[in-house]
Amino acid sequence: MAHTLGELARHIGAELQGDPSCLIRAVAGLQQAGPGDVSFLAHTRYLKHLATTRASAVILDAAHRAHCRVSALVVENPLLSYARAAALLHPEAMPAPGIHPSAAVGAGCRIHASASVGAQCVVEQGVEIGADAVIGPACVIGRDCVIGEGSRLLAQVTLCHGTRIGKRTLIHPGAVIGSDGFGLAPDRGAWVKIPQLGGVRIGDDVEIGANTTIDRGALEDTVIEDGVKLDNQIQIAHNVRIGAHTAIAACTGVAGSARIGKRCQIGGGAGIAGHIEITDDVIITGMAMVTKSITRPGVYSSGMPAQENALWHRQVVRLRQLDGIAERLKNLENRLQEK
Amino acid sequence: MAHTLGELARHIGAELQGDPSCLIRAVAGLQQAGPGDVSFLAHTRYLKHLATTRASAVILDAAHRAHCRVSALVVENPLLSYARAAALLHPEAMPAPGIHPSAAVGAGCRIHASASVGAQCVVEQGVEIGADAVIGPACVIGRDCVIGEGSRLLAQVTLCHGTRIGKRTLIHPGAVIGSDGFGLAPDRGAWVKIPQLGGVRIGDDVEIGANTTIDRGALEDTVIEDGVKLDNQIQIAHNVRIGAHTAIAACTGVAGSARIGKRCQIGGGAGIAGHIEITDDVIITGMAMVTKSITRPGVYSSGMPAQENALWHRQVVRLRQLDGIAERLKNLENRLQEK
Amino acid sequence: MAHTLGELARHIGAELQGDPSCLIRAVAGLQQAGPGDVSFLAHTRYLKHLATTRASAVILDAAHRAHCRVSALVVENPLLSYARAAALLHPEAMPAPGIHPSAAVGAGCRIHASASVGAQCVVEQGVEIGADAVIGPACVIGRDCVIGEGSRLLAQVTLCHGTRIGKRTLIHPGAVIGSDGFGLAPDRGAWVKIPQLGGVRIGDDVEIGANTTIDRGALEDTVIEDGVKLDNQIQIAHNVRIGAHTAIAACTGVAGSARIGKRCQIGGGAGIAGHIEITDDVIITGMAMVTKSITRPGVYSSGMPAQENALWHRQVVRLRQLDGIAERLKNLENRLQEK
Repeated sequence: MAHTLGELARHIGAELQGDPSCLIRAVAGLQQAGPGDVSFLAHTRYLKHLATTRASAVILDAAHRAHCRVSALVVENPLLSYARAAALLHPEAMPAPGIHPSAAVGAGCRIHASASVGAQCVVEQGVEIGADAVIGPACVIGRDCVIGEGSRLLAQVTLCHGTRIGKRTLIHPGAVIGSDGFGLAPDRGAWVKIPQLGGVRIGDDVEIGANTTIDRGALEDTVIEDGVKLDNQIQIAHNVRIGAHTAIAACTGVAGSARIGKRCQIGGGAGIAGHIEITDDVIITGMAMVTKSITRPGVYSSGMPAQENALWHRQVVRLRQLDGIAERLKNLENRLQEK
Repeated sequence: MAHTLGELARHIGAELQGDPSCLIRAVAGLQQAGPGDVSFLAHTRYLKHLATTRASAVILDAAHRAHCRVSALVVENPLLSYARAAALLHPEAMPAPGIHPSAAVGAGCRIHASASVGAQCVVEQGVEIGADAVIGPACVIGRDCVIGEGSRLLAQVTLCHGTRIGKRTLIHPGAVIGSDGFGLAPDRGAWVKIPQLGGVRIGDDVEIGANTTIDRGALEDTVIEDGVKLDNQIQIAHNVRIGAHTAIAACTGVAGSARIGKRCQIGGGAGIAGHIEITDDVIITGMAMVTKSITRPGVYSSGMPAQENALWHRQVVRLRQLDGIAERLKNLENRLQEK
Repeated sequence: MAHTLGELARHIGAELQGDPSCLIRAVAGLQQAGPGDVSFLAHTRYLKHLATTRASAVILDAAHRAHCRVSALVVENPLLSYARAAALLHPEAMPAPGIHPSAAVGAGCRIHASASVGAQCVVEQGVEIGADAVIGPACVIGRDCVIGEGSRLLAQVTLCHGTRIGKRTLIHPGAVIGSDGFGLAPDRGAWVKIPQLGGVRIGDDVEIGANTTIDRGALEDTVIEDGVKLDNQIQIAHNVRIGAHTAIAACTGVAGSARIGKRCQIGGGAGIAGHIEITDDVIITGMAMVTKSITRPGVYSSGMPAQENALWHRQVVRLRQLDGIAERLKNLENRLQEK
């Protein structure tokens, strides 16, 4: 999928410094690139490799154009422009439209002629699949699900009954969407299951990572708004709402009925308590334990960074003494006050 | 699945305050409910919506009956009674009995005529499936597994060979039960696998969440007793035993040979160390790190709640100074003592 | 699969103290073992059971041979020798070679005649599967994957396109290898996906746990070196490199571009930040939060062990006061200095 440098510059809106007829075939890192490759400089950490790169061209910002000895594609946001160049040069292989003969498709489905349903899939009754949608191999689509135009489920994805997926949404292997929320009523030392009667609504342009799970609501829907990006092995409990364009890194858990605002960024391995609200534009760092609502944008953190085991042991001991330390300090202050 | 209010009151054992002939078709939240719906009040948090609800009836306790302007179903435990009402009004759709033609079933299986095996399933040799059991689409049931009456595996569930599931147990999509425990013997800088020869025994009325994993024992069985409820993405290592009616929230990990008592409640994202014992009726809050046995019932916690990043940074610095702070305090005390 | 004690002793390189013609049929724990069983003593924790065991023989080290009242297999490393004895006495059941008729196999695949492809598998075009490899039921092997000799994918495993697996590697159910890394470029409040064009290379003799996920690289490959052992529900992000013979326990997450050395041991539920480097022979304890590179071998830890909830609450309050406590201590020191 080769393009001239001129075409590439136009596609990503770059100012070209170099020969527009040069043919570009692939993207590559500054150190690995060779003739025919375009590379990019998105972090000064890699500036040292710019001088020696063998790439035919480099995407970079105006501040670094002077350091570039090969052709330059000058843009405002090199990472973003690189993403667009990579998508142009390396288009994803799409399966042919149609339903694989090994797929089991139930009654009353409406599957667009341009959509693809892969081998070993199970599509239960009443499912609706939009134009250009791709259901990869071995997916299970429960009854009455709706999958919007251009959305793709890559492999082994499970959508439980009634799940609604928007347009151009991408779901990675092993994800489970619409499983029952964890709703239990105590009954004399045992638990009675509370039927989970809500559903899950996923917006447009959402990405959902491998083995991530999103539970259906207890009565109303769990909602993932447009443009949300979820990494692998995330757990979203019932009745959670995640605001548009929020990104969450892997292994984070969001407990029931939590509401997360728009454009938030949540690090990996974080935990968000149930029934709390996080406002828009909040950044939460990795492994943080969020126990209360956050009402102001900003960066929030918790956790103890790892250190040598012996030091950690002493710290843990001191932590247990901390209440006593505070009391003893107060005593000293009082005694000095008296003098 | 409509019922009269009188029938519903009898079913859940409620005292009815209102017209017993009123027809109820569905459950709904206090704010969303309309005519024909029954709602419930299980938390004073929602009391404000009781005055304005358009539900035909509300399930609540005696303390709140005076505030109810519509028909009331007065019970001791509204959440429990709601769960029963919801199950009555919204019965789960069950697949027809029989084996889907796309399923691959091995030799020597005993599958009850009333059981259902879904599309694209793999049932290996020697498997036993009880009456009314449901094996959902795309499940893999390893050789010699036993699945009790009325149990349901929803989709894409894997049971490794010899796993035994009790009665009326519910397993959500993507769960893996009976995978090898993580047993390794060191051998001059490398690892030799220790064969995992035990199995997994799951009791009756257990619920296992989506993408949860439960490893088989090294020599004896990993055991999940009756009535245990496990949320999504939980990891249970080899030789763990979880006592009856314990509930564990999502993303928690339980390390090898840990024993957890009966009726415990463990929050999400917690970690339970290996080879420890937790007695009955223990509550562990979310993200807690349990490193030692717990011998007395009670509530146990750890973890640092998130705060503004700058404050957290200072706290981390101070934590590293904590040992020195304690020493300096001791010095001051000694100096004042001398005077 | 019975063997004489003499054969067993030769196989594991043990010095035999007892009757070499005694027939051994199985391994068992010291307490559970009976005639025909071989047991082992790998930890003094179990020494009390040695006196009463009914096993025909026990694998133990020279220090404990005097305590053994039954036949003894004296070795240097009882756990390692037990692992080998167990593998001899309990060989794994292997499926017959060949492709199950329900499998969907694409064009241009090279599948060795001795390999096995299970029921309901999907093998896309151009896949190469080596001698004696086993693809268990319901796996999805993306186009152009390579699976080495003797490797086994147990069930419901997904390999995304182009993933390369070495020899004798074992992958447990539900694992997803080669899913897209979490690469996003910000664009005016929204996110643009960065195509993930690298792959995943898994070495020889690797073990990968149930529902573990390993992302493909952004440009270069994510690499898991020979002999690495990964437990269940681990998340390995894009461009990570894990050194040979490193073992990682369940629920740990490794963020993008982190490099972990050889022969490391990482506990369960740990988090490793992105772009950091951990040298060889590092031990990280469970739930530790590793935010910086580790350049010296040793044991590293973090986290607050659980305690009674009321004590934890006080500790959290005191932690928030810690900065003030340090200031107040400084003031006292200054005042005493002045005197």
